[in-house]
Amino acid sequence: MEEKLRMGRKLKMGMVGGGIGAFIGGVHRKAAALDGLIDLACGAFDVDPEKSLEAGKLLFLPEDRVYGNYEEMFANEKSLPEGERMDFVSIVTPNHVHFPVAKAALENGFHVVCEKPMTLTAKEAEELSSLVEKTGLSFAVTFTYTGYPMVKQARHMISNGDLGKIRKVIVEYPQGWLSTRLETENQQASWRVDPKKAGPAGAMGDIGSHSLNLAEYISGLRVTEICADLSSMVEGRALDDDTSALLRFDNGARGLLHASQICAGEENALRIFIYGEKGGIEWHQHEPNTLLVKFLGKPVQVYRTGVDRGYVSDIAMHNTRVPGGHPEGYIEAFANIYRNFSLSLGSLIQGEKPAPETIDYPDVQEGLRGMKLIETVIASAKDDERKWTSVLK
Amino acid sequence: MEEKLRMGRKLKMGMVGGGIGAFIGGVHRKAAALDGLIDLACGAFDVDPEKSLEAGKLLFLPEDRVYGNYEEMFANEKSLPEGERMDFVSIVTPNHVHFPVAKAALENGFHVVCEKPMTLTAKEAEELSSLVEKTGLSFAVTFTYTGYPMVKQARHMISNGDLGKIRKVIVEYPQGWLSTRLETENQQASWRVDPKKAGPAGAMGDIGSHSLNLAEYISGLRVTEICADLSSMVEGRALDDDTSALLRFDNGARGLLHASQICAGEENALRIFIYGEKGGIEWHQHEPNTLLVKFLGKPVQVYRTGVDRGYVSDIAMHNTRVPGGHPEGYIEAFANIYRNFSLSLGSLIQGEKPAPETIDYPDVQEGLRGMKLIETVIASAKDDERKWTSVLK
Amino acid sequence: MEEKLRMGRKLKMGMVGGGIGAFIGGVHRKAAALDGLIDLACGAFDVDPEKSLEAGKLLFLPEDRVYGNYEEMFANEKSLPEGERMDFVSIVTPNHVHFPVAKAALENGFHVVCEKPMTLTAKEAEELSSLVEKTGLSFAVTFTYTGYPMVKQARHMISNGDLGKIRKVIVEYPQGWLSTRLETENQQASWRVDPKKAGPAGAMGDIGSHSLNLAEYISGLRVTEICADLSSMVEGRALDDDTSALLRFDNGARGLLHASQICAGEENALRIFIYGEKGGIEWHQHEPNTLLVKFLGKPVQVYRTGVDRGYVSDIAMHNTRVPGGHPEGYIEAFANIYRNFSLSLGSLIQGEKPAPETIDYPDVQEGLRGMKLIETVIASAKDDERKWTSVLK
Amino acid sequence: MEEKLRMGRKLKMGMVGGGIGAFIGGVHRKAAALDGLIDLACGAFDVDPEKSLEAGKLLFLPEDRVYGNYEEMFANEKSLPEGERMDFVSIVTPNHVHFPVAKAALENGFHVVCEKPMTLTAKEAEELSSLVEKTGLSFAVTFTYTGYPMVKQARHMISNGDLGKIRKVIVEYPQGWLSTRLETENQQASWRVDPKKAGPAGAMGDIGSHSLNLAEYISGLRVTEICADLSSMVEGRALDDDTSALLRFDNGARGLLHASQICAGEENALRIFIYGEKGGIEWHQHEPNTLLVKFLGKPVQVYRTGVDRGYVSDIAMHNTRVPGGHPEGYIEAFANIYRNFSLSLGSLIQGEKPAPETIDYPDVQEGLRGMKLIETVIASAKDDERKWTSVLK
Repeated sequence: MEEKLRMGRKLKMGMVGGGIGAFIGGVHRKAAALDGLIDLACGAFDVDPEKSLEAGKLLFLPEDRVYGNYEEMFANEKSLPEGERMDFVSIVTPNHVHFPVAKAALENGFHVVCEKPMTLTAKEAEELSSLVEKTGLSFAVTFTYTGYPMVKQARHMISNGDLGKIRKVIVEYPQGWLSTRLETENQQASWRVDPKKAGPAGAMGDIGSHSLNLAEYISGLRVTEICADLSSMVEGRALDDDTSALLRFDNGARGLLHASQICAGEENALRIFIYGEKGGIEWHQHEPNTLLVKFLGKPVQVYRTGVDRGYVSDIAMHNTRVPGGHPEGYIEAFANIYRNFSLSLGSLIQGEKPAPETIDYPDVQEGLRGMKLIETVIASAKDDERKWTSVLK
Repeated sequence: MEEKLRMGRKLKMGMVGGGIGAFIGGVHRKAAALDGLIDLACGAFDVDPEKSLEAGKLLFLPEDRVYGNYEEMFANEKSLPEGERMDFVSIVTPNHVHFPVAKAALENGFHVVCEKPMTLTAKEAEELSSLVEKTGLSFAVTFTYTGYPMVKQARHMISNGDLGKIRKVIVEYPQGWLSTRLETENQQASWRVDPKKAGPAGAMGDIGSHSLNLAEYISGLRVTEICADLSSMVEGRALDDDTSALLRFDNGARGLLHASQICAGEENALRIFIYGEKGGIEWHQHEPNTLLVKFLGKPVQVYRTGVDRGYVSDIAMHNTRVPGGHPEGYIEAFANIYRNFSLSLGSLIQGEKPAPETIDYPDVQEGLRGMKLIETVIASAKDDERKWTSVLK
Repeated sequence: MEEKLRMGRKLKMGMVGGGIGAFIGGVHRKAAALDGLIDLACGAFDVDPEKSLEAGKLLFLPEDRVYGNYEEMFANEKSLPEGERMDFVSIVTPNHVHFPVAKAALENGFHVVCEKPMTLTAKEAEELSSLVEKTGLSFAVTFTYTGYPMVKQARHMISNGDLGKIRKVIVEYPQGWLSTRLETENQQASWRVDPKKAGPAGAMGDIGSHSLNLAEYISGLRVTEICADLSSMVEGRALDDDTSALLRFDNGARGLLHASQICAGEENALRIFIYGEKGGIEWHQHEPNTLLVKFLGKPVQVYRTGVDRGYVSDIAMHNTRVPGGHPEGYIEAFANIYRNFSLSLGSLIQGEKPAPETIDYPDVQEGLRGMKLIETVIASAKDDERKWTSVLK
Repeated sequence: MEEKLRMGRKLKMGMVGGGIGAFIGGVHRKAAALDGLIDLACGAFDVDPEKSLEAGKLLFLPEDRVYGNYEEMFANEKSLPEGERMDFVSIVTPNHVHFPVAKAALENGFHVVCEKPMTLTAKEAEELSSLVEKTGLSFAVTFTYTGYPMVKQARHMISNGDLGKIRKVIVEYPQGWLSTRLETENQQASWRVDPKKAGPAGAMGDIGSHSLNLAEYISGLRVTEICADLSSMVEGRALDDDTSALLRFDNGARGLLHASQICAGEENALRIFIYGEKGGIEWHQHEPNTLLVKFLGKPVQVYRTGVDRGYVSDIAMHNTRVPGGHPEGYIEAFANIYRNFSLSLGSLIQGEKPAPETIDYPDVQEGLRGMKLIETVIASAKDDERKWTSVLK
């Protein structure tokens, strides 16, 4: 708990979205609550003010901090004294609302935690990026999987040169839940396959974006060229539900992306394999506390999450809460983004320089990068003649 | 979030123990915070008042709610109005302090969440049990592993008769961290091997108690006879660090217990196998979201945690937070005890009958049962002639 | 052992290649010997007659059945009476020798078991295919992985419609052994990276061909278009050591191929995932006796090899030797090709119609198909502009 | 194949038992055939001479080498010239026939490979042991699991002191196939639960004996005291179908044995865990090519079978046939016993000293040891008062 030394107080979080029946909003609240660094202070939980109020009540918020829309929330919160007012807003709406809320938040001086994909277009993302630069506000994008300790361990080892020059990257995110036309009955599914709400990419936007973010985060490389094949396997679906792509990276490495929502029987089976000249790593979200480390001619080594693992890197340890063998999961990974965001933001508010390990969270640049990758995949998939499409820098 | 409907407000938690450098206290705080049902309101975090104050500061508590000892805390909190004062106390000290604090809490009208083993002796446990009965206060004991959704699923299936009459139970909890004489340098280790602080049982008290609790919780059976062999493998250690035992259950089933802290290289590798006439189950803490269900002559079925798993029982679903494939872990299991305790206690405070699924947490009776099992194992191990020792009813 | 009823006698096998220091020849001999259906009768084990003789001696063959070259072997064996002479030849040389030996064998009236890739070019493969049709001789190609019982189970279930229409196929064969320039020192490596001996494809020919064969065998689909990216990651290597490809299948399914010999730290980690409208399957060579079967909304089912598994298909059972839990491996899979080949050939020799389950081995048509797929991948990889290359029919 | 250099010729094997419908006989034949070192030359496959003949025909044996009983076989084979006559007999009958056949074989000058348990009583085993000593003949007992390469690797590492002094041994062999009263309909089950044919121990004799053999083989320790609890869970069954036992070893280590045939849904899930002062090992038959090696404070290391694994011991390599990742299985483990037996016996026949790695197979002493352990377990289980029963030396 000594990590809190540089924070003068708990931070106050406001939330846009995440009302009754929503999924990811509840995860954000749990993630924000876990470490005792953040209080939920206010929210505009639903576009319907009645429903927003109802949600606020179930979240034990006072009525005067539950708002009917984000404009009202920003306006009122601004008027409250520091320490009482919201410090940052967490945006957990469907995709098409991210941009206007994030923009308004920044313009009103609030820091932001935003769900991915950050916007509907790279152009919008550029605008947010400029605003962040201009205002100097903090901005996190919840590329959740980068929050796992063993993901950070993998990144550390590659960055450290342990695997040698990277040659091949395979990232796969199979889901099965959209194998049928679930969107006709399920709230989570319906907006995700509606181009107006989800943006131009379906599976690619929802989970392909996570996959490429993870690949770049761990490998330290950047994808430069993509050759993609997208399908809508379920009849009548407007957006892609299946992504396959060849990847080329800036150091000459090659790669593969498989992100699909029609892999019947799969859960959120995100996995990644990266190989260098000297060794490789393998990580699966299903067993996130295990990182397989493979060196040429040696037994595979099973790295494990745990505050008592002497052999893991400081950055992995910093993002770990319990001893080895007591599994940490998705909420803890999510919470690491909130925790690092809060620790660094809290330091900044106190006028302190954030500890380096606390600025390791996906920021607006990663959000922008994500939009460029999505747009490149879409462009490549639309062109059935040209093999390679370059990623915009 | 609709589950909170019967609670009128968040509950206030006080804490005894869990100061700087402690382990389990931080886990309790995270588990209590996760679901937004509980606020940490006060604490006596250390026997040294200075250190208690320091811890309270790092936990963002006001100074007047940080106490130098539990007597002071109970006295002062009692004087505060309901809703402001502590509703329940969480006891996270070394074992020997559990009893006096729990007793005082009950005598002062506070509900209790207590670490296991609940006391140093079955006699003390009987006293707490009587006090709970007399006062009508709520009392939870953190037998953590019963909080996992797939553990509850296993219990449900067995209780439902899916496996037929149970014949064999194997429960194993290997750890390796006490393979060397760590107690000379490590705070967590030192009190655990000191009979004055840990009680008469070492490995048996620390993890064997969890193991037998889990075996009884899932199987619905009660151990009636034990034949135990305990060792102190590390020279100079006063308490046992290795437990082996044969078990007999009240329905005629047989069993084995292996709980050891000298299994070099193991983490908290708790696992359980239960077999009935028609099938078996297998569960490992290392992959807690998976329950292997085995029916005679059929493919093994892999049950998985997830709010979207249509096939799991209501009780497992109630204790699940995210969709399948996003792993839940140890803190979530722990949080399920706090969550159910809070939901049922909140209902009681509101004068409502708790929902049945919320009273599914280990209570003072389970704590007492745990002490009887520990004492039986110790008695059996001391007797190298007699094969079987009966468990006191 | 009743399966042998239709065979009048054990078959006699000759071998070309497989001398001292070779790898795959020994595997063929073990696979052929396992079921007691075949005797090794003669061989031309090495291009050096002295070394051939030495190998023959170590194989306990009489000197007069050990030959200096295949021409000599075919000539002499032809002169021996049936039952004593070689019935079929097993060709286990480097790739470039397959074609001339196979052609000569067929022309001399011998049945053939041939290593893959069957030839260096599709044109040669066409020639062998015509010869087989003309002569009516039996011809097997050792696409080993189709011999695993759970691979056959997967094929059976898909063919049976259990998974619904297939939508996505991912096949991956990572190896790490050519991560360094091993060819300068290792006999197995040196010919595999020499275009004169291995043919135009490196990793693609060696393991990519296995992968696509497996994908088509299990799915029952045919690849129609390929978009491939091949690399030679190790400096100075003439052939590709890394394959990535997008696949399109004749029913509209999409797919991915990853076959690489520079995945440092990997063994022969062949794995395949196939998804249909109703469910999916997953199979790994590392755990070949397990087939994961996944149906929408149900627990994953773990199908297992075993003569006592009541739930598996007849075709899988026919290719299984021991009860469940006693693992069968690579040699047994290999042996299934020899066993089915022998049982059907033995029947034919006896003038009996082979049992249908015994003709389930990869034949000359599969060998030809393999060459077409290799040539398509090579053509696609050479063209960095055009996205899709059609597979020749 | 150079390993055969010291053998002058293939060995001739006779077989007693293993007729149509038998299980283990076929495994022995495959295991003996695999490496091309042994020819099946003759057999008395069934107590019914007609059925013996029928089996011989299906095994492609000449009629004059198929016998109606073992006495006839030994008498006739003795009269044949060396090189033509049977060198050794493989005894694969139900347990009660092992002793008379083995005795007669030794008395007639034949070497022996015998199924386990070697006899019905320790007394009979002593007699065979004396006969072997007197005659100097070779005698192997098929404790199959000691044939796995990774089992040998584990033994090597422990013997080498890599794990330090051993402290705890857990061996478990759960099967489920006798969960119902299968013996009324199944030939394999019926003799195994008939005391006249199986001997005094059921599950203990069939799989408990394998388990203790494996524990002693790998650990290099000897069990000195046993406290056992045996049950017949299935009504009407004469022999035990479930074994639980506490173990004490000659160096002070403690242990647990779980061997059961009523673990519904389990296959042959033999597994073993051994822990020393410095580290531990874990091995499962279900994944026999993996040995987990765990050192204090380090990542678990995954040792793997494979002729190309540079890091494994010579003795493991000697018992390996293919490169890593191509799984080897039960038949290969079995075949290692036959291979080592044959290589050493072949050398002896040639008047050569066997290579040291070839005498690593379970011999008559291990067979005798197995009988003593079985008798100790039975004696302990019968006594529900006394805790410990000493193993006869």
